[in-house]
Formats: sequence, structure tokens, C-alpha cells
Amino acid sequence: MNWQEDTLYLLDQRRLPLAAEYKSCKTVEDVAEAIRNLTVRGASAIGAAAAYGMVLAALQSSPGTVKADLERSGKLLAGTRPTAVNLFWAIKRMLAAVTNQTDYQTICQSLRQEAAAVVREDVQNSKTIGRFGAALLPETVSVLTICNAGALAGTDYGTALGVIRAAKEAGKHISVYALETRPVLQGARLTAWELLADGLDVTLLCDNMAGCVMAQGKVDAVIAGADRIAANGDTANKIGTYSLAVLAKAHQIPFYIAAPTSSIDLAIATGKEIVIEERPAEEVTHLAGRRIAPENVKVYNPAFDVTPAQLISAVITERGVFRFPYEGKFAE
Amino acid sequence: MNWQEDTLYLLDQRRLPLAAEYKSCKTVEDVAEAIRNLTVRGASAIGAAAAYGMVLAALQSSPGTVKADLERSGKLLAGTRPTAVNLFWAIKRMLAAVTNQTDYQTICQSLRQEAAAVVREDVQNSKTIGRFGAALLPETVSVLTICNAGALAGTDYGTALGVIRAAKEAGKHISVYALETRPVLQGARLTAWELLADGLDVTLLCDNMAGCVMAQGKVDAVIAGADRIAANGDTANKIGTYSLAVLAKAHQIPFYIAAPTSSIDLAIATGKEIVIEERPAEEVTHLAGRRIAPENVKVYNPAFDVTPAQLISAVITERGVFRFPYEGKFAE
Repeated sequence: MNWQEDTLYLLDQRRLPLAAEYKSCKTVEDVAEAIRNLTVRGASAIGAAAAYGMVLAALQSSPGTVKADLERSGKLLAGTRPTAVNLFWAIKRMLAAVTNQTDYQTICQSLRQEAAAVVREDVQNSKTIGRFGAALLPETVSVLTICNAGALAGTDYGTALGVIRAAKEAGKHISVYALETRPVLQGARLTAWELLADGLDVTLLCDNMAGCVMAQGKVDAVIAGADRIAANGDTANKIGTYSLAVLAKAHQIPFYIAAPTSSIDLAIATGKEIVIEERPAEEVTHLAGRRIAPENVKVYNPAFDVTPAQLISAVITERGVFRFPYEGKFAE
Repeated sequence: MNWQEDTLYLLDQRRLPLAAEYKSCKTVEDVAEAIRNLTVRGASAIGAAAAYGMVLAALQSSPGTVKADLERSGKLLAGTRPTAVNLFWAIKRMLAAVTNQTDYQTICQSLRQEAAAVVREDVQNSKTIGRFGAALLPETVSVLTICNAGALAGTDYGTALGVIRAAKEAGKHISVYALETRPVLQGARLTAWELLADGLDVTLLCDNMAGCVMAQGKVDAVIAGADRIAANGDTANKIGTYSLAVLAKAHQIPFYIAAPTSSIDLAIATGKEIVIEERPAEEVTHLAGRRIAPENVKVYNPAFDVTPAQLISAVITERGVFRFPYEGKFAE
């Protein structure tokens, strides 16, 4: 993700790892579409993209209409994807940054600074999360992860993958099982790609192999990211995370969530209140543009699931490591 | 699977559901290759194909060498895939059918009859399994299945899908969740296709969605097939079956294995002795000929896993329904 000359350049995650192409966003509408169509995905990354989307909204606007345009643009961006809370958090933060401002140029400048701060803090938070998480891992460790809670899901370094990177930097012998993560294959396409690029020892698995490798004693810890964490610790993350948590418990393997506190939504008591996005059937029935299932088959395609707090060994944030029961602890 | 004019015609399961093409096998080598490359797959189907492979071996042979050629062909066929026991069972059965015969024409004729009997009994067994299994299901039921233990995996009707078909025929209101079953997508390509063709209510899921739909209370029973069942009930089946069994137990959902007794291997005490086939990395890294993962990524691709007997609510066979503990019961 690059911001240059009032344009947001997003690495098109749909094309990775076959092609590394940047898409340029010159309007807030461009950013909204990029979030909706998964050009940019991952909780922190869509938050940061939305922050720059708000900058673009102001730049497109005019002195007389900027406040109203920002309100409208905030709603446009918020309507792109319903589950990850970082999106709403970033929009609110951008609006709050200019609440008391009236001068158009000052508003534009404040929004530019705030978006840059969102990105800068995201990188710092990821490194802190990485350090806290790495400390939980033994010296020699095999970690299993799902989806891509990596540099590509944020602005750099990553949360779950930040823990893995920090463990390596701390000299630990770490190897990684990356679940391919159907239907969009963020694990196969993104996690495997970015960990290989960093010289990490990564083995790709289909999602349905997780239980098998756990039973073989090959997994010491599971680390996943989060799209939204309720006040009680229930966590929405990529579909399949819940199955992993159940399997980890059955095999007595610690199951960690690594996420910035911007992923915590204290406004909701439990995971029951989290809206789970259902995505188009074509994500399941087609792959790389080719049909892989019969026509007219019904599909259920929830993009996320909710893991109950009691299955989560710890939530690793930039403010520290929290352990069950989580009620009241996040707010301290 | 059709046998006509001394040629075995196999519906090419790699092309389904996009194309329904038959591959003709005129030699035992053709059959061995068809089993190896998954033109034909499914425990009962590869057993039946191997039976006809033995017929072809005899027809290719000559009066003086037929017995030696059959021995050699049996080894060739047995070397194609290591996990499903039906393959070895069918080869042994074909050899046993001609043990006491010496006349070449009689041997060929006996083998033809024995192969036809293997197919005929497989269909009968599937219908019986279906009837026994359907009786275990409530009047309105939502069943989740993995891979394809259907008509395509046998010679007709199917085992796990036979139970589903029989439940429908018995007037039960049955709906099905079919897991797509990575990496080869037998669920998406074959199960969804054959159940849709039979007018069943089927919803396609990615494998990592199983836990989510169970937690939502949408699954009343899990039914899977088997590639090999040890004397104690431990069952090898398509990779992902073990994860499903753990998830079913966590959600107090009955988990059934439906398989003919030819899938039971009394020669092995437990699942630890079952050889698990590892298949090429390309099954995971490529889809429909297209790369979906970065180059040089390591892959672990076990085709099967082993579900411990204590996670299996019942084993449904043509000889009846067996329940844990299974030791000694299969042999009665």
C-alpha cells in the first residue's frame, strides 16, 4: 500500500502470487470498490485503505461540502464489508480528526496526517504484537496458521505472521503450516508467498488436513488473526478458524489470536452480535475463472466464523497478552 | 463403468462435471493407469475396475502363461494405490476364482463371471447399506458428507450417498451438505453432481465451513465412506474425515461410516497399520491446470487420514450396523 501524489496504490491481492500489480485509487469510490472486490483485504489493510479513502473523499470535495461529503464517504466505505471492525474504527478516527476543523485545506492536511498515523501505528502495533507473541512460543516450534494475517493483511509485518516473523528474528527455530484457506486461497496465494519471500520454512496444506497433522503431533501452536473481537473475547475471523480452534482443543494445542486492539469491539458483548458476511457463490463454484462445481448447485459461503472465547488460549495485542476469561480486561 | 466386447469403459471422473467422457481400457496396463491417475476412484469402484483388469490380463495372455500373467497383473494393479483395501480384496478374489482351473478358456470365462459378480454384489451391498443407514436417520434430517462415497465411487447407488438415496426413497425429508473435498474436489465435482441429478437438496460447502454449520445447528448427522477399516474400527477415508469426526463429537452429532464389508481389513488390528498414500504436490498447488500457490512452496498432501474407532458412532455395512467397541464384531 503506497500513498503518492494524492493517489493510493494497492497491491492487487487477487492476482498474487502469479502477478504483483498495483491498482491506483484516485477517488473514494475506487477505494470502496477495491475493498469490496478484495483487491485489498485483511482487517488492518482495509482499515488503512479506508483511511486514505477518506483523504481522497476530501480532496474530491470542495470547501462548502467537505464535511457532508466526508460523512457520505464514510457510509460508502462502511458499506463495503460488514465483519472486520477496523474498517469502522478507521472511518470514525478519520472523522474525529477533523470534527473541530472548518478550513478546507486544514481538513485535507489533517486527514493526510491521520491516515499516515493509522499506517505508522499499524506497523508499530504489528511489531509489538509480534514480540509479545513470539515470547509465548518455545525455542523450536511448528505453527499452523489460516488465511493471511500477514504483511499483506495490514500495512507491514502482520499480526499472526508478525508473531512468526518476530519468533524467527528472536532466533527461534520456527516452521509454519499454512492452510490454503478456501474459497479465496489467501493462505496458498498470500501467506505462502510472503513467508517464502522472507525465507521462512513453510508447508502448504489444504484446510481439511489440519486435524491430520495435529494428530500426527506436528503442530505446537495455532495462530490466527481477527476481524472482530467482542468484549467477551469471542472472535470473528476467516471461515475455518472455528474448526481449527475445536481441533486445537481436542489435541491440547494452544490456540492464539493475534490482533491490534483496533480489532476489539467493546460495543458488542459477545460474538453473537457480529454480522457475518456471506459472499457470492462463484467464489466456491469457480476457481481462476473456471467452473469446478455443477451448475445450479446451492452454495453457502460465509466469509467468517466466530470462535468462542473459551477456545482461545490467549489474545495477543499491542497492549499485551490477554487470557480467558476476557470480560472487562480489554477495556482496562 | 461398462464392460462391453472385452473392453472396460470408465467414466472419466477427472473431467466431471464439465464433461462426461468415457475412457476405454483394453489392457490391464490401461486399467492400472486409470486407477493411478484417478480416472476411476472410490474404494468400491477401483475394486471393480481391478476385477475387470484381471479379466483383461487373462485375455491378453495365452494358455501357457495365463496363471503367471495373472499373478504379475495382480501385483501391477495392487501397486497403483496403497490405502483402499477393496483393491486388494478384488484382486485376491479374482485369483481365488481360478485357483483350481487349468483350461485357458475356462479361466477367461470364470474371470468374466467373477468380475460381473463383484459388480452385481457391490450394487446389492450398496442398496442394503442404504436401507440399514436410512433407518438410523430421523424423518427430517440434514446430513453432511465428504468426498464422494456415491454411485461414482462404486458401481451404482453408493455407500454414504446410498444411505442418502435410501432415506429419500423411504420418504424422509433429507437435505445434504456436500464438502467440496480438496484437493481433488470430489465433493464439488462428483457428489454435488450426482445428488443434483437425483433431485436431492444439496448445498456445497468448502471443507473449512464444516465446524461453522455444525455450530449453527444445521447438521444432524455426518456420513462418510471408507477406504479401509481396521479390525478395531479405526477407519481410513478421504483426508478431512478425521477433522469432521472430531468436530461432530464436539457438537454431539452422530458420525457414521457407510462401507461394504470388503472395506474391512481384519488382517490389521488398528489404523496405525494402514498405509496412507501421499499424492503429488501439484494436486494442491494447481487447479484445473492453473497454478494457485507460489513456486517452490513445500506441500504435504496425504490423500487419506485415519479416524479412531471411538469417534465413529456406527459402521453401516451390508451385514448390519456395528457400534463401538468394534473389536471382534466384524468377524462374527
